[in-house]
Amino acid sequence: MKNVNVNGRSYRWPERPLVVVCVDGCEPDYINQAIEAGRAPFLASLGKRGTCLTADCVVPSFTNPNNLSIVTGAPPSVHGICGNFFWDPDAKAEVMMNDAKYLRAGTILAALADAGAKVAVVTAKDKLRALLGHRLKGICFSSEKADQVTIEANGIADALSLTGMAVPSVYSAALSEFVFAAGLALLKRERPDVMYLSTTDYVQHKSAPGTGPANDFTAMLDRYLGAMDELGATIVLTADHGMNAKTDALGRPNIVYLQTQLDAWLGAGATRVILPITDPYVVHHGALGSYATVYFSDAGAVADAAQRIAALPGVEGVFTREQGCRRFELPPDRVGDLIVVSERLTVIGTSAERHDLSGLDAPLRSHGGISEQRVPLLASRPAGTLPQRRWRNFDAFDLGLNYLR
Amino acid sequence: MKNVNVNGRSYRWPERPLVVVCVDGCEPDYINQAIEAGRAPFLASLGKRGTCLTADCVVPSFTNPNNLSIVTGAPPSVHGICGNFFWDPDAKAEVMMNDAKYLRAGTILAALADAGAKVAVVTAKDKLRALLGHRLKGICFSSEKADQVTIEANGIADALSLTGMAVPSVYSAALSEFVFAAGLALLKRERPDVMYLSTTDYVQHKSAPGTGPANDFTAMLDRYLGAMDELGATIVLTADHGMNAKTDALGRPNIVYLQTQLDAWLGAGATRVILPITDPYVVHHGALGSYATVYFSDAGAVADAAQRIAALPGVEGVFTREQGCRRFELPPDRVGDLIVVSERLTVIGTSAERHDLSGLDAPLRSHGGISEQRVPLLASRPAGTLPQRRWRNFDAFDLGLNYLR
Repeated sequence: MKNVNVNGRSYRWPERPLVVVCVDGCEPDYINQAIEAGRAPFLASLGKRGTCLTADCVVPSFTNPNNLSIVTGAPPSVHGICGNFFWDPDAKAEVMMNDAKYLRAGTILAALADAGAKVAVVTAKDKLRALLGHRLKGICFSSEKADQVTIEANGIADALSLTGMAVPSVYSAALSEFVFAAGLALLKRERPDVMYLSTTDYVQHKSAPGTGPANDFTAMLDRYLGAMDELGATIVLTADHGMNAKTDALGRPNIVYLQTQLDAWLGAGATRVILPITDPYVVHHGALGSYATVYFSDAGAVADAAQRIAALPGVEGVFTREQGCRRFELPPDRVGDLIVVSERLTVIGTSAERHDLSGLDAPLRSHGGISEQRVPLLASRPAGTLPQRRWRNFDAFDLGLNYLR
Repeated sequence: MKNVNVNGRSYRWPERPLVVVCVDGCEPDYINQAIEAGRAPFLASLGKRGTCLTADCVVPSFTNPNNLSIVTGAPPSVHGICGNFFWDPDAKAEVMMNDAKYLRAGTILAALADAGAKVAVVTAKDKLRALLGHRLKGICFSSEKADQVTIEANGIADALSLTGMAVPSVYSAALSEFVFAAGLALLKRERPDVMYLSTTDYVQHKSAPGTGPANDFTAMLDRYLGAMDELGATIVLTADHGMNAKTDALGRPNIVYLQTQLDAWLGAGATRVILPITDPYVVHHGALGSYATVYFSDAGAVADAAQRIAALPGVEGVFTREQGCRRFELPPDRVGDLIVVSERLTVIGTSAERHDLSGLDAPLRSHGGISEQRVPLLASRPAGTLPQRRWRNFDAFDLGLNYLR
């Protein structure tokens, strides 16, 4: 069998359909609690028949950096996508990184397709589609815009007829269910060699592990994965990041307003706080996550500010660009002078007036920090001897293609 | 009104009954989720009418160190209780710290009683009773041994008739309910000036926030606190520590077997790993928590071992005795050469054969680390101007007596 080389790693040719699933915001306890409640028999069965690891995702523990890491098999220092936004100091503008021109590495998906594999990608939100489908000869569409597909853009003429489901609201559990339903239909009809399915964390931002909507979601996922397993596919499940409550006992968000703080210390305009979680879909988290990066107009002010930020209640760690890019494997040219990570129950905002929390109809749950780094890495088949290493979520294709028996 | 001075802090005389409640293992989300489910109307009301803070508990985030901190208003460096066990290198023995002779500071409870206040203490497990009741002229008994009270030992001749409840199993939610039921009855009958109620985390070790048994427990607690509030008492609620899942997605515990690892590196007998969570009641957590301390026979081996331990997957931090005692305010003579803290989803064990996990009938949830440090600090009355400080759970009496209006 031929091997395919991508970003310095070698992948074996799929012997049977491989479905890699990225469950957005899948804190391990979502699966555990659903199993405990008897709602996830397929996932429960993996303990005996499959491979069950816990992996570290990329920090910032956000959706885009991690999805791109999974499909490139590499950290953001290689692929370049380290958030939804970065600050371009030359253009003096916040630049959105949804465009594929910011992607610095090829994907495993595209390389397999180039080598002749049949590849399909379904993602919940359209913001990821262009990046995941970069230079991909295959099927690639989003639930969100499943009614607007074309052969030229998406490799499929009609995505709605796959499932009979209408296009769901972008803020719904159904947006993710559509991904699985379409994936199952594609597996039956097209039998792709490799499929990548990526959901949205709408449910996880609202519902804690073990609560009704969370168990309903995991049960739904379990049914679809079980059906794909019965069709002979190999399933590898991982997550882009975990999820934690970011509130006090009364459900009020714990927020460090970092821009407000820095303006008070250094004056307005001396710094710019970038929250790379910010994107066009912020209703369910108010653009509040546990990671920020800060640009300084005066490099001489960085060290002192770092110490002061580190002493703020709720801040877990402050890293210089160099420290942070080394530790988290990030691209230095898209990171500010400082990286700030807040602790498990705290998020970082800019200033109160710049966050609209009116859309939060449940106490804030979010991600972005080190506290959301542990994610499941599960497979439906047993593995041969596994190397002793720090498993990453972006080892999903490595595990699925190179180690499963 | 006279003030009472204890351990360098001054407390105002209670104008009305003050009930300080330590809810064992009360991760803030237990309350939040119960409020969301409509099960905790009294606690929900505190957002408008009360005082709602988040505080840091003592690390190791275990029951005894934190209960003693709350009742002394001081960290373990002052009161001496830093776990259930410490290693006595001279006696070459693991010494249990349940005995009051290990307590190095007086309690606020005893000082208030000495000054003429009527004081009552009810705790779930008897292991805490002797420490909490040290030199206390007042009522002090446990649910566990409520059928064995005497006037001489407990300040009350008959504890069972207070509630009509039978003595509950030591492994039950009812053991904590007994605490509240007895507390409510004492409030009605004795109207103590100060009451301290301390529960057990049997439910929290088994059930995640928002799941059925967890919400049932919080609803029970809410009913009793609401009733005490209606009787005119001031309620201050805090926790000894939080609680986290310590498992992978399939519910299997993530354990670093530290003694096994050290024996492999340095040889058997070179080190001794002490898990201060160990006590006579380990069925619900298998003596597995996120904190350990390590004694070395060769001081020259400490630095190298510290580096190697820090690199183990699941380890969050390694501190020398000096670093750890400074950061966590611990008594150096009761701490080993190293302190090891594991990350949120991981616990530390000694060796596999020394942990009986057969009693775990639900996936492991536990505490002990920095990840369980954030706890609620709630009060039923509004506060005057509060100082800007890092609130601790052992500020509960300070808040209740000195700041509430």
